[in-house]
Amino acid sequence: MSIQAKLAALNIQLPALSPPVAAFVPFVRTGSLVFLSGHIAKRDGRPWTGKLGDDLTTADGIAAARATAVELLATLQLACGGDLDRVARIIKLLVLVNSTPYFTEQHLVANGASQLLVDLFGDRGAHARSAFGVAQIPLGACIEIELVAELA
Amino acid sequence: MSIQAKLAALNIQLPALSPPVAAFVPFVRTGSLVFLSGHIAKRDGRPWTGKLGDDLTTADGIAAARATAVELLATLQLACGGDLDRVARIIKLLVLVNSTPYFTEQHLVANGASQLLVDLFGDRGAHARSAFGVAQIPLGACIEIELVAELA
Amino acid sequence: MSIQAKLAALNIQLPALSPPVAAFVPFVRTGSLVFLSGHIAKRDGRPWTGKLGDDLTTADGIAAARATAVELLATLQLACGGDLDRVARIIKLLVLVNSTPYFTEQHLVANGASQLLVDLFGDRGAHARSAFGVAQIPLGACIEIELVAELA
Repeated sequence: MSIQAKLAALNIQLPALSPPVAAFVPFVRTGSLVFLSGHIAKRDGRPWTGKLGDDLTTADGIAAARATAVELLATLQLACGGDLDRVARIIKLLVLVNSTPYFTEQHLVANGASQLLVDLFGDRGAHARSAFGVAQIPLGACIEIELVAELA
Repeated sequence: MSIQAKLAALNIQLPALSPPVAAFVPFVRTGSLVFLSGHIAKRDGRPWTGKLGDDLTTADGIAAARATAVELLATLQLACGGDLDRVARIIKLLVLVNSTPYFTEQHLVANGASQLLVDLFGDRGAHARSAFGVAQIPLGACIEIELVAELA
Repeated sequence: MSIQAKLAALNIQLPALSPPVAAFVPFVRTGSLVFLSGHIAKRDGRPWTGKLGDDLTTADGIAAARATAVELLATLQLACGGDLDRVARIIKLLVLVNSTPYFTEQHLVANGASQLLVDLFGDRGAHARSAFGVAQIPLGACIEIELVAELA
């Protein structure tokens, strides 16, 4: 089953990509590796704002992390020339969680993104990961995730 | 002198590896590079909790960073098929220090990990590094470190 | 026009490199990739301290991010054996902004570094990037940036 078919089965529609808004690009490829910029969580096309431990629950964070993974998939698809089946391996996620100084469930939040990648890519989706709480994220977003993948 | 012998001389016993608890893996290899997930500090097999600038001193942090490096070495050994002498180079550490907004000695804390790697691997252990203070770390751990290495 | 000539046209003088102060090195090369350690912002050769959202404005942060990019360029030049024209691509920046829990313009701050790299390197300077707010940075610096580049 292709990744495209799996996305459809999960009823996930990848977002249209926004043009880059600054002096950087959504991804850079070097050899077989592709480095994706940090993508923020969005809801209804706008930044999904809030802070874990304050106005957002762990369940909110899990949903936002999953939504961020969907944003990353749209960029990854572009990096693959349109065909996500060319992803040989998801190598690493850096998961930043907008957190109060007392919220300690960043690993559970990050699973929202990690699980989707494993559901879609199977063994090729099993990745290394760091997740931690940060003081803030651009535009007040609750989650930002950066991704490194290997392309076939 | 093998890395194994150096570990023994330093009286360091690598911990048994816990099975991964989530949709991610402890390391991913791509070409000659291996990316290790963020590992948290542990003491007596449990998360070493606390915040620098609050309930932990810089000396505590240095000890916790060294303990985190030992956790990473156990995973790196697994990535090397059991033989740490196959590490060609420690490339980079990302050192996250659970900090109040006023603690500014993350570089000293991180040296607890950096020094152990140089003591063990010599020139092959000299790595690039970023260290900074974060709002929180999963399970309230005081330190989390991610590592990239090159394998022979 | 060489990068050296562009730096001169921009009236940018790369700083003399300080000897490493700890058990880590300013950069590590592996294959065609070079990983630079996190470099902090400096002003008049000393750490540029402060926190965005508190005692520093976004404009201050932009200037500090640009200054940090200049520090990185000095190290990158060393990694290139003195010739910055050997940079094939700036691959990725990790931009850490010393932020209060309420400052949300890390992306604007980071542009101070990104824009300089694009001005200098053109298309080769267009990079992937993550920017976010951290609780603190070593020595109280307001900005820390880590960089990955591909060398020809």
